[in-house]
Amino acid sequence: MAKKMQTMDGNQAAAYASYAFTEVAGIYPITPSSPMAEYTDEWAAKGMKNIFGVPVKLVELQSEGGAAGTVHGSLQAGALTTTYTASQGLLLKIPNMYKIAGELLPGVIHVSARALSAQALSIFGDHQDIYAARQTGFAMLATNSVQEVMDLAGVAHLAALKSRVPFLHFFDGFRTSHEIQKVEVMEYDDLKKLVDWKALEEFRQRALNPEHPVTRGTAQNDDIYFQTREVQNKFYDAVPDIVADYMKEISKITGREYKPFNYYGAPDAERVIIAMGSVCEAAQEVIDYLVEKGEKVGLISVHLYRPFSAKYFFDVLPKTVKKISVLDRTKEPGSLGEPLLLDIKALFYNKENAPIIVGGRYGLSSKDTTPAQVLAVFENLKKDEPKDAFTVGIVDDVTHTSLEVGPALALADPSTKACLFFGLGADGTVGANKNSIKIIGDKTDLYAQGYFAYDSKKSGGVTRSHLRFGKKPIRSTYLVSRPTFVACSVPAYLHQYDMTSGIKEGGKFLLNCVWTKEEALENIPNNVKRDLAKNKAKLFIINATALAQEIGLGQRTNTIMQAAFFKLAEIIPYEEAQQYMKDYAKKSYAKKGDEIVQLNYNAIDRGANDIIEIEVDPAWADLEVTPLNEPKEIGDCAYCQPDTEFVKKIVRPVNAIKGYDLPVSAFLGYEDGTFENGTSAFEKRGVAVDVPIWDVNKCIQCNQCSYVCPHAAIRPFLINNDELKAAPNSFTTKKATGKGLDDLVYRIQVSALDCVGCGSCANVCPANALDMRPIAESLEAHEDVNANLLI
Amino acid sequence: MAKKMQTMDGNQAAAYASYAFTEVAGIYPITPSSPMAEYTDEWAAKGMKNIFGVPVKLVELQSEGGAAGTVHGSLQAGALTTTYTASQGLLLKIPNMYKIAGELLPGVIHVSARALSAQALSIFGDHQDIYAARQTGFAMLATNSVQEVMDLAGVAHLAALKSRVPFLHFFDGFRTSHEIQKVEVMEYDDLKKLVDWKALEEFRQRALNPEHPVTRGTAQNDDIYFQTREVQNKFYDAVPDIVADYMKEISKITGREYKPFNYYGAPDAERVIIAMGSVCEAAQEVIDYLVEKGEKVGLISVHLYRPFSAKYFFDVLPKTVKKISVLDRTKEPGSLGEPLLLDIKALFYNKENAPIIVGGRYGLSSKDTTPAQVLAVFENLKKDEPKDAFTVGIVDDVTHTSLEVGPALALADPSTKACLFFGLGADGTVGANKNSIKIIGDKTDLYAQGYFAYDSKKSGGVTRSHLRFGKKPIRSTYLVSRPTFVACSVPAYLHQYDMTSGIKEGGKFLLNCVWTKEEALENIPNNVKRDLAKNKAKLFIINATALAQEIGLGQRTNTIMQAAFFKLAEIIPYEEAQQYMKDYAKKSYAKKGDEIVQLNYNAIDRGANDIIEIEVDPAWADLEVTPLNEPKEIGDCAYCQPDTEFVKKIVRPVNAIKGYDLPVSAFLGYEDGTFENGTSAFEKRGVAVDVPIWDVNKCIQCNQCSYVCPHAAIRPFLINNDELKAAPNSFTTKKATGKGLDDLVYRIQVSALDCVGCGSCANVCPANALDMRPIAESLEAHEDVNANLLI
Repeated sequence: MAKKMQTMDGNQAAAYASYAFTEVAGIYPITPSSPMAEYTDEWAAKGMKNIFGVPVKLVELQSEGGAAGTVHGSLQAGALTTTYTASQGLLLKIPNMYKIAGELLPGVIHVSARALSAQALSIFGDHQDIYAARQTGFAMLATNSVQEVMDLAGVAHLAALKSRVPFLHFFDGFRTSHEIQKVEVMEYDDLKKLVDWKALEEFRQRALNPEHPVTRGTAQNDDIYFQTREVQNKFYDAVPDIVADYMKEISKITGREYKPFNYYGAPDAERVIIAMGSVCEAAQEVIDYLVEKGEKVGLISVHLYRPFSAKYFFDVLPKTVKKISVLDRTKEPGSLGEPLLLDIKALFYNKENAPIIVGGRYGLSSKDTTPAQVLAVFENLKKDEPKDAFTVGIVDDVTHTSLEVGPALALADPSTKACLFFGLGADGTVGANKNSIKIIGDKTDLYAQGYFAYDSKKSGGVTRSHLRFGKKPIRSTYLVSRPTFVACSVPAYLHQYDMTSGIKEGGKFLLNCVWTKEEALENIPNNVKRDLAKNKAKLFIINATALAQEIGLGQRTNTIMQAAFFKLAEIIPYEEAQQYMKDYAKKSYAKKGDEIVQLNYNAIDRGANDIIEIEVDPAWADLEVTPLNEPKEIGDCAYCQPDTEFVKKIVRPVNAIKGYDLPVSAFLGYEDGTFENGTSAFEKRGVAVDVPIWDVNKCIQCNQCSYVCPHAAIRPFLINNDELKAAPNSFTTKKATGKGLDDLVYRIQVSALDCVGCGSCANVCPANALDMRPIAESLEAHEDVNANLLI
Repeated sequence: MAKKMQTMDGNQAAAYASYAFTEVAGIYPITPSSPMAEYTDEWAAKGMKNIFGVPVKLVELQSEGGAAGTVHGSLQAGALTTTYTASQGLLLKIPNMYKIAGELLPGVIHVSARALSAQALSIFGDHQDIYAARQTGFAMLATNSVQEVMDLAGVAHLAALKSRVPFLHFFDGFRTSHEIQKVEVMEYDDLKKLVDWKALEEFRQRALNPEHPVTRGTAQNDDIYFQTREVQNKFYDAVPDIVADYMKEISKITGREYKPFNYYGAPDAERVIIAMGSVCEAAQEVIDYLVEKGEKVGLISVHLYRPFSAKYFFDVLPKTVKKISVLDRTKEPGSLGEPLLLDIKALFYNKENAPIIVGGRYGLSSKDTTPAQVLAVFENLKKDEPKDAFTVGIVDDVTHTSLEVGPALALADPSTKACLFFGLGADGTVGANKNSIKIIGDKTDLYAQGYFAYDSKKSGGVTRSHLRFGKKPIRSTYLVSRPTFVACSVPAYLHQYDMTSGIKEGGKFLLNCVWTKEEALENIPNNVKRDLAKNKAKLFIINATALAQEIGLGQRTNTIMQAAFFKLAEIIPYEEAQQYMKDYAKKSYAKKGDEIVQLNYNAIDRGANDIIEIEVDPAWADLEVTPLNEPKEIGDCAYCQPDTEFVKKIVRPVNAIKGYDLPVSAFLGYEDGTFENGTSAFEKRGVAVDVPIWDVNKCIQCNQCSYVCPHAAIRPFLINNDELKAAPNSFTTKKATGKGLDDLVYRIQVSALDCVGCGSCANVCPANALDMRPIAESLEAHEDVNANLLI
């Protein structure tokens, strides 16, 4: 059978597979699970049919608790019911989960697993949420990649129906839920064949029905509750075989072998990692690398976490194993070990020749988990007394739990090319990159992976797009650290972020800027120059900003940058890429008319042509550099506050995307999550290309500019005479209009360094009193106007 | 220092100790924790002061979730804040618990641990709820008896303040929360001395305050969340020592030795049980019994469950231990073992000479856990391969998890007298018994224990009061099965419940009935006669019903029965008891006037005097008996439905209080909690002494009788001509009054067997058309009038 390949993220894969088996979806959105519900909603609205031939009925509730109640009620009414959630959303479902399990209802929850709000909230991925539900009586199924989500999400539904035990299927929030991969799509026809129709019929028959009423939801006393809890044992006992059987069927269809526990590695492994989720993919890369070197290592990837089946575990574990490291993506303070570790120790307890077992925490809140970290875990197991209760991926210099991690390992298939893009939230960089992945994934034989790192600022924040392309399936479930191609859409980032230190030998760096070659050479800081020279990399600039204006695309530089990427990165021949880009542009913009399509064609053509190469001087390798996370010059002016200890120690590194490297000790004194106020004063990024210049004469004092500014960068002030006397010369004002304002003057103050250059203010101004001009013009007046009025 | 002893239940003890340290209580009531909040509310309303000299500020929210949010917010505002909860209430607090722990706030939650709603709801006690919160980062402290609650509840507050880690203190719902015990009261002055005032001051300083604002509740990304989660390790590392130190202080004050783990038993024990909660008390009885026989057994009672301290555990564990049985009062379907078992296995993993460890479940939903069960656990450990993952306390004939339990063991101190009372919910039996315990507990040197078993019918259900009195502290945390004294307030129970099979040799059975000696002999069923004869027990009757009427107490027979109890049970000299009862009656009723006090004095005097002894014929030992849980004769009449399979197998035994003995297999086919409808038709108990007789002539058809009846036992009917023709002769009716009812007749129908005889209908009737008459008069007409109209 021909494989149907498609490029999608984990959420889409889960939504697709679960849609097949879902009649009712009771939902409430929460990051990073929301797209699952959104896809379901969209497809249902379009009339897409599940395997029963009807669209899903989707109901959005007032909270995740309400969604859980709906799932419970809908299941009791005889409808196959699903929900999608994460984090606190899952916590709110726990009471209903006990009920759904207790009443043996085949509901399914798909969870893009996420951290929990403790010392701070986090929208990112780990397993704290799913572990908080491990005692509810739900069966739990883990998948490790977008392809596994696609292949196994249906097993949760199939096995729930057959076993009567509800399923929670989970995969890593963001790392899997938002990672775009080229995957083989399951066919609904194949899935449909796997349904236990008799079980479905019985499920329908058990539905609450006034025609044959029964009593459910009773209260039981101390006399019979215990017995009725134990009479369910056989249903749980049956789950592993049911799941294993379905996995066999899926393996037949896909050619990928699935079991409740999958083993990967040396058949005679002595050191083994046990884990769940995306880390298993990276671990496979490390195992290939080590096994090739003759090391006896392996991995057990846990798919069926609950019920935990000793039988299937020992079926796959090599008899030769002497040491085990269990990795848990969670932290349970005060426990003797994280949950999976406790299970594995219990599993081997009192067994003959029981291996040495240690456990560790990794990857909390999407902390990047790299091959070097996995290697450190294997290295730890080499010791006679391997460190237990360790952490890996951070430097714990306080309670000294962390493993030492060696230098980065480049383990991806040699055919794989990695690219890294720095963009401004909402500037279109991420969208263009998703587009590029789809082009490459869907139009060529190459595999493609995209992961998009945001901060929580959403619009206006810094985005990093991590793209990989290669001839083999891509298992690198971690950020790109050694890119062959780096692009930067925002020249201000040069002074803020380290974009180039990891560039691969012979790599390319593309910078969008309004500078000439000479200006660029002057403006590009030493660290970038040195990185490029040391790595024999190439440097390119493009004035996509001017080009977009010129073509008529306004501030939308992304298509130009995309074209430049295809030209420089050489993933596929440029002529093909050019045609694909145009095909996609036509598809995307046809509705908006031929003119817009043509503008994008122009952008595609020009983007490739207007690239300017700047020769990299080998002497740059010896340039002196200042560390990036030091206070910036522009923050050092007379009007700015001095850095506090907190700002120096934490805020500066975090703003420089160097928070990853902060050791645990940096947070001593802030253990309860307390942060200082007013830190945005130290984050004046100056990322805008153009910022508004106020025309005092045209202004009608309507204040609408301030109202629409998403970053509070433009504000109206009323100033009295005393204040006016203290103001600098360039402090233009006009008489304030309005009742009772007779003695005051009015001024619009722009903080150029806070502005992201979105132009909303200028667009909304009814008097055309705001003109978007290059930021340099505003910054020149910095000392005069950016006075302490604004702080 | 003179010990201040007081008789109270676990909830009162927890409320008392926690009140000392509480400034704000954010509450929402849930059984069985509600009294903790109610006591706090009452004391605060009366102006009782905490150790800081102010009354508690109590706030009731809209749900347990809201209460948790209030606790979180109030702690952030710098107030020492407490809440009380159980079961689903605790589940709703989980999201906030992560926050409270994450922000290192010294909040305290007192939990009367309760089962969770799964296949059915249960209000009764086990540890499912607290285990569902074990991963939140709260420290967790377990207490096993009312005295331990009193002694250690304060440690939760003290240690939370000092360590900055919030505490969850829990004890067994109902078994400890509602068990009345005579305990030594902690003095607030002693507790006050233990406060870490510096920590308190620092807590105040950290409070959110507009005068020195800080930012909390931030969002952290993948860069620093992991580090900030680990920087809290040291706070958790410090908790065990802090708790151990406070326990030492408490030990000094009380003379009772407390540690994070307490060991009890042979110093050279080879077989050890590890457990938490009230079972530890019963286990101590068994250990005394076995150690005396030379067996090497012991118990580790876990007080500090989280953080779990290996150091303090191994400090107390005898080096000689070879086999361990871990008892968990929970069930986590699909796990490899219940939580405490997993901890203990992890604790010993890879240790040299690691003992054999098995685990078992017991006591779900307050399932009575007896010495015989504990013995079975120790016996299991004698085997070379002890059964693992067992259950004890039920017969699991489906998945065969259960241990075989031998005959009941009587292990209480020989000075202990056990009494058992069968009453009708709201008839005053429980109240009178609580009164008796207080008299004995507070007025004498004897220890006293009271446990009150209800069904969920509340008013009108059958109540069983389990009382013990003795010279030593009472550790029998299980139901009375071998009473020396049994009282029954409701003669109808003779045919419904087994009250006498466990009576101790030479015991006494007191029956309240309206019968003469001869009538009683005729009415008392064979099983009772046989039990009494076999056990050489004595039989007494009293017509408390007539006596109460005569004295002027209406239906309130409880004071009379109490007097009879003191007379017959001989716990203390009757003359003393008489005086104490009168003192209490005066205290209770003085406000209602001298006349009421005198009526109670009369009841006390007459109750002791009007007892009639009936000679027990030794020949009764050979009488034939019919099993109790068979369909009753009165249910067998032509108008009643035949028993369904479900009724026979489950409803009848449950109604006969024999549900305890139902094996797991009884529930095959009902695994999802589905019960048949209409089972109340099979529960016609006939417990009323008097039931209403309808006077057709006086009735004005207002229907108020039906409106007020709490058991729907009296109902108005409109009957048409056809129906009337089919009715029996005694079916009196009158012309229906009201618009459009011209062709109908009206009748009030009383179901005597459903009536509990409360008399509400007669009281409310404005026409005096209802007369409360002995149930026999109504039952005589049963076949005629209790027609299928009512079913």
